[in-house]
Amino acid sequence: MLTGMQIAVIGGDARQLEVVRKLTELDAKLLLVGFEQLDHAFTGAVKEKMEDVNFAEVDSVILPVRGTDPDGKVETIFSNEQVILTKEMIQSTPPHCTFYTGISQPYLEDLLIEANRKQILLFERDDVAIYNSIPTVEGTIMMAIQHTDYTIHGSSVAVLGLGRVGMSVARAFHALGAKVKVGARKSEDIARITEMSLQPFYLNQLTQEVKETDIVINTIPFPIITSMVLAHMPVHTLIIDLASKPGGTDFRFAEKRGIKALLAPSLPGIVAPKTAGQILANALGQLIQEDLTQRKGKN
Amino acid sequence: MLTGMQIAVIGGDARQLEVVRKLTELDAKLLLVGFEQLDHAFTGAVKEKMEDVNFAEVDSVILPVRGTDPDGKVETIFSNEQVILTKEMIQSTPPHCTFYTGISQPYLEDLLIEANRKQILLFERDDVAIYNSIPTVEGTIMMAIQHTDYTIHGSSVAVLGLGRVGMSVARAFHALGAKVKVGARKSEDIARITEMSLQPFYLNQLTQEVKETDIVINTIPFPIITSMVLAHMPVHTLIIDLASKPGGTDFRFAEKRGIKALLAPSLPGIVAPKTAGQILANALGQLIQEDLTQRKGKN
Amino acid sequence: MLTGMQIAVIGGDARQLEVVRKLTELDAKLLLVGFEQLDHAFTGAVKEKMEDVNFAEVDSVILPVRGTDPDGKVETIFSNEQVILTKEMIQSTPPHCTFYTGISQPYLEDLLIEANRKQILLFERDDVAIYNSIPTVEGTIMMAIQHTDYTIHGSSVAVLGLGRVGMSVARAFHALGAKVKVGARKSEDIARITEMSLQPFYLNQLTQEVKETDIVINTIPFPIITSMVLAHMPVHTLIIDLASKPGGTDFRFAEKRGIKALLAPSLPGIVAPKTAGQILANALGQLIQEDLTQRKGKN
Amino acid sequence: MLTGMQIAVIGGDARQLEVVRKLTELDAKLLLVGFEQLDHAFTGAVKEKMEDVNFAEVDSVILPVRGTDPDGKVETIFSNEQVILTKEMIQSTPPHCTFYTGISQPYLEDLLIEANRKQILLFERDDVAIYNSIPTVEGTIMMAIQHTDYTIHGSSVAVLGLGRVGMSVARAFHALGAKVKVGARKSEDIARITEMSLQPFYLNQLTQEVKETDIVINTIPFPIITSMVLAHMPVHTLIIDLASKPGGTDFRFAEKRGIKALLAPSLPGIVAPKTAGQILANALGQLIQEDLTQRKGKN
Repeated sequence: MLTGMQIAVIGGDARQLEVVRKLTELDAKLLLVGFEQLDHAFTGAVKEKMEDVNFAEVDSVILPVRGTDPDGKVETIFSNEQVILTKEMIQSTPPHCTFYTGISQPYLEDLLIEANRKQILLFERDDVAIYNSIPTVEGTIMMAIQHTDYTIHGSSVAVLGLGRVGMSVARAFHALGAKVKVGARKSEDIARITEMSLQPFYLNQLTQEVKETDIVINTIPFPIITSMVLAHMPVHTLIIDLASKPGGTDFRFAEKRGIKALLAPSLPGIVAPKTAGQILANALGQLIQEDLTQRKGKN
Repeated sequence: MLTGMQIAVIGGDARQLEVVRKLTELDAKLLLVGFEQLDHAFTGAVKEKMEDVNFAEVDSVILPVRGTDPDGKVETIFSNEQVILTKEMIQSTPPHCTFYTGISQPYLEDLLIEANRKQILLFERDDVAIYNSIPTVEGTIMMAIQHTDYTIHGSSVAVLGLGRVGMSVARAFHALGAKVKVGARKSEDIARITEMSLQPFYLNQLTQEVKETDIVINTIPFPIITSMVLAHMPVHTLIIDLASKPGGTDFRFAEKRGIKALLAPSLPGIVAPKTAGQILANALGQLIQEDLTQRKGKN
Repeated sequence: MLTGMQIAVIGGDARQLEVVRKLTELDAKLLLVGFEQLDHAFTGAVKEKMEDVNFAEVDSVILPVRGTDPDGKVETIFSNEQVILTKEMIQSTPPHCTFYTGISQPYLEDLLIEANRKQILLFERDDVAIYNSIPTVEGTIMMAIQHTDYTIHGSSVAVLGLGRVGMSVARAFHALGAKVKVGARKSEDIARITEMSLQPFYLNQLTQEVKETDIVINTIPFPIITSMVLAHMPVHTLIIDLASKPGGTDFRFAEKRGIKALLAPSLPGIVAPKTAGQILANALGQLIQEDLTQRKGKN
Repeated sequence: MLTGMQIAVIGGDARQLEVVRKLTELDAKLLLVGFEQLDHAFTGAVKEKMEDVNFAEVDSVILPVRGTDPDGKVETIFSNEQVILTKEMIQSTPPHCTFYTGISQPYLEDLLIEANRKQILLFERDDVAIYNSIPTVEGTIMMAIQHTDYTIHGSSVAVLGLGRVGMSVARAFHALGAKVKVGARKSEDIARITEMSLQPFYLNQLTQEVKETDIVINTIPFPIITSMVLAHMPVHTLIIDLASKPGGTDFRFAEKRGIKALLAPSLPGIVAPKTAGQILANALGQLIQEDLTQRKGKN
């Protein structure tokens, strides 16, 4: 339980509602900034304006998954007012205050370093990344269905990378009846791909391995689908690039060759905001709990 | 090989292109009616106007999957001209001429009975129905992803019926990590559901079994999701009704209760026209071959 | 509930203990013949000698799955005494008395016809056959592991038949990572095999299809693995024949060619007697219930 | 290709035959010690007595997976003669000579350190461990079938650990229809277990989680199935301990409670010696190749 913790939830989309639900269940005291238009009221959560928040009493700050923009502006779906997180606010928090967001972003990172406050990037945690791979997979399936005129079942799919997302994607497309091959660099990944009844290949053979693919799904944040690789693919191949921006595909060359290549947006919040919110909520619940336990231990 | 066979392909959508491709590969002589706007030329296939077709020399007639409308009009995607199949045309075909379409439709059925010509309904064949269940499943997955804010993975799904479509749907949703229960009437279906590691229930228990479902997928062409059943479902449940029109759901009552219920259109032609066309093409290739072999045997 | 029913359970192995457990739970009154050495006592069940049974008061008779031998002798695992089911006993049962056994056997069949008593063959029921396919599959896996020096994972397996057992076997070997092809005669089975992501072939191509198999599993009770087929198999192939005696393999020729071919015994009672007993118990519970309901309806 | 490499294969069982086959295919020159009774001759491989081997010309030495016994004796299945690997032999090898074996063993380890020769433990490599998990899984399935009277399908299985073996075991038992829960310590493993559609639990809850298990499979080399844990298990539970000797189970207490607990031997060589040999052969082929490439690079 988080009894006694005061947490500011600043901005965000539908996912934050699951976070609010979870943290109020755990008995935390919540300040909601940027949620004026939200009808629903949560017991234990109070809507406030940014300027009214007493940051000196806040134990944790939860920001949207993208943090702030380069000027400190926080995205708010449930509000028309502009919400800015300033240096002064950050510095007025107590030293133990922890800031939670999804991915790293310079404005916030710099201010937190300057103020010597702890930042936790949820999307870089292995557990969150693996849980998020589930809605990511479903979004990828949806894209594959929408952007082809053939079924996933029976088509030849190449997945690049057997990491947190790659393993989930490969398993799901195999389960739907695709002929899945997975490219990796490490011999232990080649072994695991084999054990999963998928066809393994070393990524240095990529050019040869894409010659008869229908769908290529990339999970590697590195320019891997080069013009050379693209030159060997059938023109009807669909590329879905799941690697974080700018992806691993030479999109310009793909377009030139007439190959459809899509840089997938962050899919969890789009295809399953409720599930995506629960993933964040569970991770936050656990992390804030650990934070609290640790601080109590010190006292 | 279908050497010597003369086949009229009258109207239809992108699926018919796969049919034309396949039958020309098998060396049949094709007359294409309603394809003027098609750029692509197929060797062995000649575009003709309806009034120029010499039906006396036609061995098989392939119509779109829906046949004709109540006035004999044939749907043509690749033409602006009106194409009508008349009683005279049918009667001028040779007695052995066979008519292929997807589903039964009174105008055509009546004329064919009167003329004593054979009609084959492709969608009523078990093999075609099972092959079509594959794109149907993918369309169902797409609908489930689009119309919920949670993932299929981890959600509670009830599939009604373990027939040609039900078995495929149940397997796929299970493979994607849903908790799948399947309702059936026959004890051998209950046994098969068990063997598939799914949770079985008898359909006469349906009212009890929907109390905690997230998604209900119906494949039974019978009013099975009654107001009584709907009254026991959680309001957030998504119903996808795959049974042919008018489906098996009391849609009026579902709307009243605020339950989203979707009568799925014929999904194969929508989500995977190329695969759907190949399914028809393969079935037609085999059936026309058998027809030819049989006639040769008689002579 | 079977309250008021008097049921004689005559002979059998460990499986019958599950039957006794189930039927006593359903409140039937049981007479156990051939169970003297059984320590365990079941409430509601009385051990009796065959000659002491008052057959005039017996509503149902449950025999071992193989019925009797040609002289009327009933197999008893838990007794040293000889138990014979005679014509007189059968004829002294009330007209509504039903006899349950696994498979047909002439001695019993003839006497029951003569006495005009109903016989139910449990193993011929689709539901029982499908439930029994589960332990049969596990026994087949065990045989495959024991009789090869390679793993099932990665090996080429051909399953003959997509019936009640074939579908279960094919699914399980695929799930363990084998490359599974399935041979069938009907086009709808070919479609289902395709949908299951297995490789289909028509059985008239069998000779060609066995050329590179590691394991062949037959479920078809017909001489299908002929000398011609065997002549095309690699010598290292393991054949497991699950069809009922005498199987579908030319065992003599297989031995001559040096191919190991095993006629599997009835596996459920061997590899999982408890599960096999529960399958019988559940089926019997349901059938006797229906029998009771029907008789009550008549009165 | 390993052209020009001279490799001594000393002792071992049927698995080494696959190693010999592979390395001769790669054009290495092989000396086989302890294979006198082997009928089969491999091109490029010469049988020799231990005392005749000129170790000064040997580039690699391949020992059985268990290395030597504490006195330097090497196990030989295909020979009656005693084969001893002495300090002098090791020291007479060229400095670049590499020794390959399965697991660490003090006699050999000490001598190799003294002589400054490289030792590679194949079984400690992640790729080999994952490939070996495949036959290990099949052996575990065989044990589970043999030592229970119920089917794996439908039974409750707890797998301890999601490492190289645990992931494979969990996947296979799930695929066979067991209800599988997996215990782990790391939150990312809990996430992966969830994604695999298995039920996760933290190992500190083990005592609670075993209360209704039918089969417990341990892969953690640590005393984890303590008397406390055993005290909470049903007596009919079967424990299969796959952790290397002495396993993770309190076997003494298990016996006292009447719980069947089996310490599995090294299964790959037993259930699938050919596959197990190919795993070693592939790994050795690759490693010796890398070794050769590296040495050439230095020159």
